[in-house]
Amino acid sequence: MLKGNILIAQGGGPTAVINESVVGVILESRRLCNGNKIYGARYGIRGILEENFIDLSQETSHNLELIAKTPSSVLGSTRDYPSDEYCEKITYILQKHDIKHLFYIGGNDTSRTLNIINKKSSEIGHNVNCIHIPKTVDNDLVCNDHTPGFPSAARFIVNIFMGINLDLQSLPGIYIGVVMGRDSGFLTAAAALAKKYTEDGPHLIYIPEHAFCIEEFKKDVKDAYKKYGHCVVAVSEGIKDKDGNLIAKTLCNTNNCDQHGNYSLASVNNTLSEFLCSEVKKEFADEKIRLRAETLGLAQRSYPESISDVDQREAREVGEKAVKFANKYGKSGSVAIERTGFYSVDYNFVDLEKVAGKTKFMPSNFFNADKKWVTNDYLLYLRPLLGSKMPEVFKLRKN
Amino acid sequence: MLKGNILIAQGGGPTAVINESVVGVILESRRLCNGNKIYGARYGIRGILEENFIDLSQETSHNLELIAKTPSSVLGSTRDYPSDEYCEKITYILQKHDIKHLFYIGGNDTSRTLNIINKKSSEIGHNVNCIHIPKTVDNDLVCNDHTPGFPSAARFIVNIFMGINLDLQSLPGIYIGVVMGRDSGFLTAAAALAKKYTEDGPHLIYIPEHAFCIEEFKKDVKDAYKKYGHCVVAVSEGIKDKDGNLIAKTLCNTNNCDQHGNYSLASVNNTLSEFLCSEVKKEFADEKIRLRAETLGLAQRSYPESISDVDQREAREVGEKAVKFANKYGKSGSVAIERTGFYSVDYNFVDLEKVAGKTKFMPSNFFNADKKWVTNDYLLYLRPLLGSKMPEVFKLRKN
Repeated sequence: MLKGNILIAQGGGPTAVINESVVGVILESRRLCNGNKIYGARYGIRGILEENFIDLSQETSHNLELIAKTPSSVLGSTRDYPSDEYCEKITYILQKHDIKHLFYIGGNDTSRTLNIINKKSSEIGHNVNCIHIPKTVDNDLVCNDHTPGFPSAARFIVNIFMGINLDLQSLPGIYIGVVMGRDSGFLTAAAALAKKYTEDGPHLIYIPEHAFCIEEFKKDVKDAYKKYGHCVVAVSEGIKDKDGNLIAKTLCNTNNCDQHGNYSLASVNNTLSEFLCSEVKKEFADEKIRLRAETLGLAQRSYPESISDVDQREAREVGEKAVKFANKYGKSGSVAIERTGFYSVDYNFVDLEKVAGKTKFMPSNFFNADKKWVTNDYLLYLRPLLGSKMPEVFKLRKN
Repeated sequence: MLKGNILIAQGGGPTAVINESVVGVILESRRLCNGNKIYGARYGIRGILEENFIDLSQETSHNLELIAKTPSSVLGSTRDYPSDEYCEKITYILQKHDIKHLFYIGGNDTSRTLNIINKKSSEIGHNVNCIHIPKTVDNDLVCNDHTPGFPSAARFIVNIFMGINLDLQSLPGIYIGVVMGRDSGFLTAAAALAKKYTEDGPHLIYIPEHAFCIEEFKKDVKDAYKKYGHCVVAVSEGIKDKDGNLIAKTLCNTNNCDQHGNYSLASVNNTLSEFLCSEVKKEFADEKIRLRAETLGLAQRSYPESISDVDQREAREVGEKAVKFANKYGKSGSVAIERTGFYSVDYNFVDLEKVAGKTKFMPSNFFNADKKWVTNDYLLYLRPLLGSKMPEVFKLRKN
């Protein structure tokens, strides 16, 4: 049984399945809490600082099951980047409320914050088991085969590019779609799964891991358009030039960074798509072609009707496992997903230090930079994550 | 039984269910064609001009059923705006191939084209039954309660705004989403169905039917943000000022019109969302708030995983009914949807002239311009069209 009170919080960007993890923690905590309190912090770490708690023992398990299937962070989230002092204040608040288990669901920044709180809490002599539960649509947490939230975002991206390709085959032209992903290309690369017939788009994929060159891009797009009669391109918002500078940032004069030092791509993504569009336009001088560039927005992480059931299942399990690990090992750590078969997973409990603040990139066997296309390894990696009942598209056969 | 050969074409923007109509025509024609040919024209009216036909007798009915569930126009479409001369050429091609029945699926521009072909064909003495089959995500065809394609686009919009609202409740801020709809606000207004709890967004809706004033807009948004702690807004791409000028057009120097004289909103929608965003930003001077403006793109009419089953059924039926009407009445006309109950429909066969090139607007009992919000009449009108298995979202109850 767990000693002391329990606190749950959600950090960073919401996903379609992060509430599964919250509910996984709540239900398993109810079983093991031995009558102690189970709190939720509103708006992440800030809710702890402001002692903005909600008593999670009150909610019916029936409503919790419905919340689990609802996208976005039901407790609210935050982009706060806590200083050491901020984290120290938090540990005193944890002490005040006799909180001995802190479950924090999030990505690299969240795990970094939790790692600081973990150290501070030992310093002040109020030991808290700080358990990090993985979540990020970027899929860029180390020690994890993949992270909850990514599969559902990928499913949305596949749907988008499936539909877009059909639209562009019907009314031929060029389409450029800008996809989420600051450092890692996993989500942009997911667009590849939308391709069914040989002539289908997307035809080209650009990810942050490989230097982006606008001249090469223009040539690639023109060649594909000439070859297939239409051209669909997926571009990561995080593409960088050969010196590692964000293309989106080089286009703007602003220095719009959040507290984590992350440049706010969301505010300049239209600039990126407009830039790519106008550059491609130059290649076609007098030729009148249909040309569209779009920035795929917040829906990538919150669309209610395209949630992967595999993602739901795993997001629930990392929540439940977090409580089991806390109970069994009585120490801090991070829950991590390991792939054990085609397709099966198991969960590990790894040192917080190993995950905290680190970034995973697309491995080299997943992407062919010359072809601007994914490898079969990546197709095999992603397909089972998309879940069951994926839409399929069909065409008329040749006479 | 139908005399002479049969030709099917699709016009204008694709939708998620337009292939249901094609398949409805093909399967019913196969039953009634008396051994005559059933052709499809590739890329709409242009395919007729170029005699780019496909023999639709060859395809298996099994594959046709799968194509019916695939979004976008399987025969290809066109934005060509045919002149009288163009239409006359077409009638000679129809004569050459002994085509006596032309089924053309599309919106106002498509019905206008078909009306010209209808007249030209009598002039040259080769009578063709020109049957218009309704389709448009804009829902702006007269004589129709609603049009196939609109319900599925509306379902996508409801999903988008459901997810966006949850995202903005989790990480508070302001969100402005620009929705398709050149003249009529039906699709933008669909966002209202995403609201479940009182505090939920969207909080404000702006449609082309009511003059848009930027000062009023800024005040509305600020007030809603102060009241609810977050603010979600749906804005039609077709909003106009009090003199009827498109706001998007007033922001750009270009005169980017298609052959129909329609200003290309797609190419300037980012300009509109950026403009609204920067204007709202001014209201908050030094206050740091999360502010996003997005243009919802082509996915609105092509997303494969959010298709209304009611829309599928009706799109199939208008195709099948078109052939039945042609067979029964042996004359040109347009298939129209009439609502006969809550919820049921029946189909009418109306004069082409009545529908051709005309535009339907949101009726006054559907929208409250002062409140920037839909009426209960509109909620009741739209809800059954969205179809079954709509996602629902849930929250934690107050302690």
